[in-house]
Amino acid sequence: MRLLLAMFLLSSFVFAQQQPPVPNVVSPEIQSDGRVTFRVLAPNAKDVKLHFEGEPKPLDMTRNDAGVWSITVGPLAPQIYGYEFMADGVFLMDPNNASIKPNLINPQNMVHVPGTTPQVWEVAAEPHGVIHHHFYKSAVVGDQRDYYVYTPPGFDPKAKTKYPLLYLLHGYSDSADGWTAVGQANFILDNLIAQGKVKPMIVVMPLGYGAPDMIKLKDAWQDADVRQRNFDNFRKALLTEVIPQVESAYPVSTKREDRAIAGLSMGGSESLFTGLNNLDKFAYIGAFSPGGLDENYAASFPTLDAKQAAQLKTLWIACGSSDDLIDANRKLKAWLKSQSIPFTDIETPGAHTWMVWRQNLSDFAPLLFTGK
Amino acid sequence: MRLLLAMFLLSSFVFAQQQPPVPNVVSPEIQSDGRVTFRVLAPNAKDVKLHFEGEPKPLDMTRNDAGVWSITVGPLAPQIYGYEFMADGVFLMDPNNASIKPNLINPQNMVHVPGTTPQVWEVAAEPHGVIHHHFYKSAVVGDQRDYYVYTPPGFDPKAKTKYPLLYLLHGYSDSADGWTAVGQANFILDNLIAQGKVKPMIVVMPLGYGAPDMIKLKDAWQDADVRQRNFDNFRKALLTEVIPQVESAYPVSTKREDRAIAGLSMGGSESLFTGLNNLDKFAYIGAFSPGGLDENYAASFPTLDAKQAAQLKTLWIACGSSDDLIDANRKLKAWLKSQSIPFTDIETPGAHTWMVWRQNLSDFAPLLFTGK
Repeated sequence: MRLLLAMFLLSSFVFAQQQPPVPNVVSPEIQSDGRVTFRVLAPNAKDVKLHFEGEPKPLDMTRNDAGVWSITVGPLAPQIYGYEFMADGVFLMDPNNASIKPNLINPQNMVHVPGTTPQVWEVAAEPHGVIHHHFYKSAVVGDQRDYYVYTPPGFDPKAKTKYPLLYLLHGYSDSADGWTAVGQANFILDNLIAQGKVKPMIVVMPLGYGAPDMIKLKDAWQDADVRQRNFDNFRKALLTEVIPQVESAYPVSTKREDRAIAGLSMGGSESLFTGLNNLDKFAYIGAFSPGGLDENYAASFPTLDAKQAAQLKTLWIACGSSDDLIDANRKLKAWLKSQSIPFTDIETPGAHTWMVWRQNLSDFAPLLFTGK
Repeated sequence: MRLLLAMFLLSSFVFAQQQPPVPNVVSPEIQSDGRVTFRVLAPNAKDVKLHFEGEPKPLDMTRNDAGVWSITVGPLAPQIYGYEFMADGVFLMDPNNASIKPNLINPQNMVHVPGTTPQVWEVAAEPHGVIHHHFYKSAVVGDQRDYYVYTPPGFDPKAKTKYPLLYLLHGYSDSADGWTAVGQANFILDNLIAQGKVKPMIVVMPLGYGAPDMIKLKDAWQDADVRQRNFDNFRKALLTEVIPQVESAYPVSTKREDRAIAGLSMGGSESLFTGLNNLDKFAYIGAFSPGGLDENYAASFPTLDAKQAAQLKTLWIACGSSDDLIDANRKLKAWLKSQSIPFTDIETPGAHTWMVWRQNLSDFAPLLFTGK
């Protein structure tokens, strides 16, 4: 009996084996108390830092004699955290961690600190829903794009009952898989549906750029034209392309009281802009750490008043209290109050992070399609 | 009108802006003649190399005065190529390229060199098929795992016609999304179906590890027990878990003449091991650069003989002529000939690369379910 080891000789995995001996680096190392040690070999670097999700500033790492830089953080609450290194001013993904946080501008790594009890965003309940990845050419935006659709456990494509839908929007720099690959939205829904806390629903996660220039041009957010085109064409592509495709492919309700729209950061503002300007189409609106809205709210929402808003089942606005957007969010909420538009006002601990948004989704989803 | 720029202040995107000025690095830069320049800032590194898919050895990069290392390769044929840097013995992903090649051991970047005419693996034909991501707990393997299902353009879940199926297996170190995220299998099928060259079919892409130890233990390939458990439990999980789930969720044929199994490298060997030992279930078998099979073929395929093999519509074995596995593949083919077992013998230019496997799939899929 002889093994064909040759299969490895051309793989990059083997390049690693062929290098001169290097220290055996483990990273990240998760300790039972929730502390996490990050390590990276960078023998000639002068300065290596850890950029850790939710930390306002990069953290200095310490070099040992073998050229391995390390830092221990925590104890951390159970969560999934994004991170990357910066060595002499250059982003460095963790070469010892294959868990990738996808992003169109700045991919990072992720580290999962498990809980001693199951967390709502962890893989737990069986069976699971299915994530469907769709591709199409957008006439509105003029590009090739994609969207994801979550169908709940036990979903029946032939169902006579029409499912309610949540349109769930990612943030600036995310790709269309942000809410699944990073946000764990499918597992959050699986778990809450299994616990009877959330009604089985279909979740549609479109690509959030009405203007792809937003992620291609430097400082696009400072260009008022690009910014407005981003909001306008996102709305148009959603209403005239994605929603009709979803309604053709899945057994979904077309009633406004069976439709919700929610999102994080840029997607939070898109949810407000699309939802509050199309109250005939959406009865539930959620904005998690919304950002990028023009502060001339009356111009952004020209037809919105207390009478219009009375149609809403839920308008839910959340922000972490240490998010730099907290003041902008409070301004928005003050304007809504001045217009006598009711909303649920949520301020949680936390910054502009996925840890906050996973919790936001877990808190928001149970409010949907309850008939109340 | 005032913009809320604050939304960026906590994002890692902004950390980049807050650093001291660094050279504006563009990487990869694709020139119209197919040459590609890779660049990475590594001011204090002593040695930086490019690991480029299909190149047997790492390529030396050159440092400029600003600390930017660069190399130009090509002209390259239109394709998607994997690559990464190695700086002073440490893998370094390209910090200026958000296109990630997922992998459970060694994620890399990808660069797409477009053709002047549409390539079979490029996004072209409309409409597109859909990729469905399924999750389940495997009783056979004892872990939580996933698989992907491609449904062709125009797929109807209520169809009375039962679709034929291709089970398509990734290689060692790939994740279950290897064939979609790297191999472009869905776009290859979209294009060939639109051209009338391939029959509309469902493609199932399961996680290929019967023994997860394979990717957790160092040198697992050298452990005969782990290796055999990997083949055995992959087959068992496929036959008793994945296939029944797919048959329950999709309108698929259960006839052997409507089932194919094919894969690359480890997945090529799994296709041979599963297919040739279950000729009652599969009529088409494809092995692309198969690796890792024990050379005691009579022991691996105890019931296989010319009479059994006569049931096969296609046994297709391909390998690149500069793949280090070419000799092992020739041994396998010599044994098949000695047993009077007919097969299609394909040797193409190329090494152990996705460029070869994209072409293999494009050549193999048209042979399936033709009734011949």
